[in-house]
Amino acid sequence: MAAATPHRVVIIGGGFGGLQAALALRDAPVELTLVDRRNFHLFQPLTYQVATGALAASDVSYPLRAIFHDDERVHVMLAEVSGFDLDAREVSLEPVGDAPAPGALPYDTLIVAGGSTYSYFGHEEWRDVAFEVKSLESALMVRRRLLSAFEAAELETDPEARRAWLTFVVVGAGPTGVEMAGQIAELAKDTLPGDYREIDPRSATILLVEAGPRVLPAFDPSLSTKAVRLLGELGVTSQTDRPVVGVDHEGVDIARDGSDETERIDARTVIWAAGVTPSTLASRLGEQAHAEVDKLGRLIVEPDLTVPHHSEVFAVGDMVNVRGLELPGLAPVAMQQGRYVARVIKARLEGRPHEPFHYIDKGNLATIGRARAVAEIKKLKLAGGMAWLTWLGVHLWYLIGFQNRLLVLIRWLFSFATRGRGARLITGQTTEMAARER
Amino acid sequence: MAAATPHRVVIIGGGFGGLQAALALRDAPVELTLVDRRNFHLFQPLTYQVATGALAASDVSYPLRAIFHDDERVHVMLAEVSGFDLDAREVSLEPVGDAPAPGALPYDTLIVAGGSTYSYFGHEEWRDVAFEVKSLESALMVRRRLLSAFEAAELETDPEARRAWLTFVVVGAGPTGVEMAGQIAELAKDTLPGDYREIDPRSATILLVEAGPRVLPAFDPSLSTKAVRLLGELGVTSQTDRPVVGVDHEGVDIARDGSDETERIDARTVIWAAGVTPSTLASRLGEQAHAEVDKLGRLIVEPDLTVPHHSEVFAVGDMVNVRGLELPGLAPVAMQQGRYVARVIKARLEGRPHEPFHYIDKGNLATIGRARAVAEIKKLKLAGGMAWLTWLGVHLWYLIGFQNRLLVLIRWLFSFATRGRGARLITGQTTEMAARER
Repeated sequence: MAAATPHRVVIIGGGFGGLQAALALRDAPVELTLVDRRNFHLFQPLTYQVATGALAASDVSYPLRAIFHDDERVHVMLAEVSGFDLDAREVSLEPVGDAPAPGALPYDTLIVAGGSTYSYFGHEEWRDVAFEVKSLESALMVRRRLLSAFEAAELETDPEARRAWLTFVVVGAGPTGVEMAGQIAELAKDTLPGDYREIDPRSATILLVEAGPRVLPAFDPSLSTKAVRLLGELGVTSQTDRPVVGVDHEGVDIARDGSDETERIDARTVIWAAGVTPSTLASRLGEQAHAEVDKLGRLIVEPDLTVPHHSEVFAVGDMVNVRGLELPGLAPVAMQQGRYVARVIKARLEGRPHEPFHYIDKGNLATIGRARAVAEIKKLKLAGGMAWLTWLGVHLWYLIGFQNRLLVLIRWLFSFATRGRGARLITGQTTEMAARER
Repeated sequence: MAAATPHRVVIIGGGFGGLQAALALRDAPVELTLVDRRNFHLFQPLTYQVATGALAASDVSYPLRAIFHDDERVHVMLAEVSGFDLDAREVSLEPVGDAPAPGALPYDTLIVAGGSTYSYFGHEEWRDVAFEVKSLESALMVRRRLLSAFEAAELETDPEARRAWLTFVVVGAGPTGVEMAGQIAELAKDTLPGDYREIDPRSATILLVEAGPRVLPAFDPSLSTKAVRLLGELGVTSQTDRPVVGVDHEGVDIARDGSDETERIDARTVIWAAGVTPSTLASRLGEQAHAEVDKLGRLIVEPDLTVPHHSEVFAVGDMVNVRGLELPGLAPVAMQQGRYVARVIKARLEGRPHEPFHYIDKGNLATIGRARAVAEIKKLKLAGGMAWLTWLGVHLWYLIGFQNRLLVLIRWLFSFATRGRGARLITGQTTEMAARER
C-alpha cells in the first residue's frame, strides 16, 4: 500500500462547503488540492458588518494556507477554474493576477463548491450602482458609499439634494437585507449623531424594499411580523410587495403590486441584497456531465451529492439542488454537505457503504441591530435579546481562528458599549475613480 | 464678549501636526474647522505593518469625526484644498468623490499641515511599479503584491522566474525601509514556511538598497552598523552606496558608486522607501505669500512657524523648514509644532507674548523585525530587545484610541506567539486591474 499513488482529491472553492470537506479529509489517506481564486476563507454571514465599519476585512476572513499550515498533504492553489474535462478527469485553471498559468489539474475525486453570487435579474447595469455586501471588495465599496453619503450631506446646502444623500434603500428582505438595514439604522441613529455639525444623521431615511409578500420569507410568519416591528423601532421602514424596477445613481423606481404605477425614491445609496444566482460552475459542470440545472440555475445532483453519470464528481452548497430535497441556500447546508462528501469519500476508500445526504436543520437566525434578533430553532421561535445572544454565540463559534474570534468579540463589545464603529474608514478612492474612468 | 464672532481657525490636514493643533485648541475660544481629504487620521509609523498583513487598515487609522465627536466647536470637513487667497483670507476647496463642491472657507488664522509624500526623483513611471507604504491604499497594494509573489512562485516551474518572484527589493534604508525589509524577512522566514508545498519561502532574497553611505543615516553610526548586523541575522542583505537607476516590472538596475556599471537584479516586487517630497501645498503657499522654499521644496517659515509676511498663517510638519533650525521629518516634530502653534494662538488671543518654536528631541527609534530594534535616546544608544520594548511602548502609547491600542496589542501578541500574520489577505484585484486598464 505504501508505494501506491495516493487517491487525488481536488476541491474547487474555499467557502463553507469546500473548506469543511477539506478539513474533514485531512486525516484521510488522500492527496488533497484546494483551489480558490482568493487566498482566504470569507465568513460571509458577517461580511455585511464590514460594510458598515463595524468589523475590519481581516476580522471576517482567514488565510486558507494558514488553516492547512500543518497538513502537508493539503495543497492550496490560488487559481481560477476555466473548465472541466470530466472524461479526462482534469480541471483546467487560469492564473490569478500576474501569476504563471497553472497546468491542468488531474483528480480521482472532484468536489465542486462554487457557491453563489448576487443576481441583478438581468439588469447588469444595476451592478455598478447598487453594490452587494457578500464579497469583501463589494462590502468595502458599500462602506465607502455609506460613509461618503453622510459627508456629502454635511456639505450639501439644498434640502432636497441633502435628503437624497440621507436616504438609504436596501433591496431584498432576506437575512442579509434585514441585517444590513438594521446596521445602517444603528450607524445613523447611534454612531454618527454628534459627528456632524450641519446635519442630524438621525434624520436619515432607511427603506427596506421587498418584492415578495413578507420580510424574512424563510422564517415563520410570526417572526416576519416581529422583525418588521423591531426594524421599525430602529427607524427602518419595511415595504413588501414592492418590486424594484429601476436603479440609477440618483434613486430607485419601485412598482406597487397589482398596479402599473411606479414610485420614484430619490436615494444616493442603494444596497443590493435581492436575488442570488449560483456560480457559473454549476452550468459548466452540468453541460459537461449532460446533467440538468433547475430553473434557478442550480445543478441537480443525486441524493449522495454526486453529479449524474459521474460518481467521482461531487457538487455541494448554494450551487446545487439535491434531488428530492428542498434546502435553503445557507452556510450550515453547505457545511454539512462538505462534511458529508468527506465521509462518503472515506467510506468508498474503505469499501464501506454510505447513506444519502440528510440535512439537520439547526435553525435560522437573523440579527436586527443592537441586541435584537429573530431566531427559529426547531419549534422554538425567539425575537429580541435572547435571540441576539444566540446569534452572537453561534457566529463567534463558527468564525475560523481564535484570533479572529477574540478580535471580533472585542470590536462588538466596544461597539456595544460606545455605540461606535472603529473601522469606519473611507478608503479606495482610487478604486472607484479608476472604475469610473473605464 | 459673548456676542462677538469667535475667532475662526482653519487647519488643513489631519496628520500628526494638524491633529495635535486641533486637539490643543479644543479648549480655546475659537471656531475650528479641520479640513482633510481623508476621513481618518493615519498613524503613519505603523502603516508599513499593514503592508505585511501584521495589522489591519483600521488598526492604524481613526475617524477624525470620532476624535472630535464631543467638541461642538470643531468642524471636520472632507475636502481637498485647491488654493489659498491670503489677501482675502480664504481657502478654496474641491469636493472629494461625488460630494457637492464646498464653498471658499474664510479664516482668521490658518494652519497648513500638508505633510509629505514619496518622491520618485523625477521618474514618475516608477510610481506604478514600486509602491510605497506611507499611504493606506498603497500599503494595501504592497500587501497584495508581496503575498501574490509567493503564490506566483508556488505555481512557477522555471527556477529563474521563480527566483525573481522570491526576490524582494526595498529601496531606501531610512527607518521605513529598514522596518519594511525586516518585516518581509519575518514574513518569509517565520510566518510563511509550512504554508507552501512547492517552494520554501525561507529561500527568499530580501535586499535593502541605499544610495547613501549607511543605513539609518539619521542615527548614530554605531547603530547603523548594529542595524546591518541585526538585518543580516534576519536574512536581509543591506547594500549601501548603491543608487537605483532603473525600476520596471521585472526588476531594478542599481549603480555602483564611483563606477559606470549598473547591476541588474531580477525582482518582481520592489518597495519604495526612498526620497520624501513635501506636499504641493508648500509651494502653493510659498507662491501666494512670496515666501521662499528650500531645495527640498519645503516652505521656509519663521521661528514662530508663521509664513513670512503673514503672521496669521502657520505651517507645520514635513512640509516646512524652520528658519535657523535643522529638524528631521518625523512625527514628533510635527506633533510638537502643532501643539506649539495652538499655544501661540491662545497667547495671541489673550495678548500674551510667546517664545519661538523649540524642538525637544526625545530620541529616535526603528524596529528591525521580531523583538529587535535600535534606539537613540539622548546619549543612550540601544540595539536589541530593550530597544524593541521601548519601540513597542512608544508606538502603543501614541496610537489614537483605546480600542486601536488594544487590537494592535492583541495582534502583536498573537504574531509574536504564533509567528503568524492575521491580516494577510489578498484583496483589491479590482483596484489593480482597473488601474492597469487606465
